Amino acid sequence: MLHIYAFSTPNSIKVPIALEETGLEYRLHAVNTKAGDQRTDAFKALNPNAKVPVLVDDSTGTAPFVLTESAAILVHLAERSGRLLPSDPTARARVFEQLFFHASALSPAFGQSGYFQKLAPEKLPAAIARFGDEARRVMRVLDDVLADRTYVAGEAYSIADIAHFGWLWRRAFPGIELEETPHVKRWYDAMAERPAVIKAIAAVEGLVP
Amino acid sequence: MLHIYAFSTPNSIKVPIALEETGLEYRLHAVNTKAGDQRTDAFKALNPNAKVPVLVDDSTGTAPFVLTESAAILVHLAERSGRLLPSDPTARARVFEQLFFHASALSPAFGQSGYFQKLAPEKLPAAIARFGDEARRVMRVLDDVLADRTYVAGEAYSIADIAHFGWLWRRAFPGIELEETPHVKRWYDAMAERPAVIKAIAAVEGLVP
Repeated sequence: MLHIYAFSTPNSIKVPIALEETGLEYRLHAVNTKAGDQRTDAFKALNPNAKVPVLVDDSTGTAPFVLTESAAILVHLAERSGRLLPSDPTARARVFEQLFFHASALSPAFGQSGYFQKLAPEKLPAAIARFGDEARRVMRVLDDVLADRTYVAGEAYSIADIAHFGWLWRRAFPGIELEETPHVKRWYDAMAERPAVIKAIAAVEGLVP
Repeated sequence: MLHIYAFSTPNSIKVPIALEETGLEYRLHAVNTKAGDQRTDAFKALNPNAKVPVLVDDSTGTAPFVLTESAAILVHLAERSGRLLPSDPTARARVFEQLFFHASALSPAFGQSGYFQKLAPEKLPAAIARFGDEARRVMRVLDDVLADRTYVAGEAYSIADIAHFGWLWRRAFPGIELEETPHVKRWYDAMAERPAVIKAIAAVEGLVP
């Protein structure tokens, strides 16, 4: 059985979406990140980096296979199922390009922008401006990508769409709206209608006490 | 021919290291990021995200193949050459886990820590502390990883080592030293002795006027 340790967070949601899309069976386990459960010794034994989500596969016969980093889990599930990641080298490169654009640009910009606006004990206008500007800049880059493509990496739905969806779903944290990026809005609305996405959202929201 | 648009930066260095390791022929082209050349219209036609490195393969017969995001380029070169990325699912997952840990944790922490210490027009002690603490935290996580492994993803050298090397090579920017992380130091010293790494450093340093 695949066990997913997760919460109702931008990175957590990606894994159940991929599992619902590929039809792999799994069980979700709540790690209440609002209560700091990701920093307990028990959780850090699974992920020393103290982040959700974590995948644990206990069906390997030997020691359980433990994997961290949401995008690494997406790549693993795609290769395991033979879905959501094309084999053609060019199409495949576009998926990795978007996965790393998400991990290194969109995700940290959204996360830091939300932190400095909403969680930082001290209001720092220069930091709020820096990360807010960067979040809006990456949204314009993504909007231009989606002006030419149905999905973020081309004409086929892939794990790169699932990765971007995680943070776009939680865009209220950095205060991002979709009105200025019509291509992202069109893509987001189509994503949000997918049965796998609807099921995964309900599943991670069910983890919140 | 493979053309690499790059400069003497943490992300740029990764690509020539992989090319030297795999023996693929390439030509480097300077994009002076200190002078802002990455924000010119000519460069943004290659990468709308305005970042180095970019790979351009003009040997495809049709339109050139253009790829951005250093880690996506590493994955592409590894799959193209059949090297530096294992095919065994578990070993492979460890490489992606470290690639995404680098892209989403180490790289932004090092970059923001250096920015708030050295480039920000206004000194913000809370931001300096936040990103400095995070850079030191991810170094401790990486040190624990390397306590148990020869290379960052296991016993085999991989593109994940190349990714981490990029920012560790530029650790003076965030002011990170290796004395408190002895396993990272052992690994870094071994990396720095590899002929491919020595050649790649000389090549990107040769791009600086």
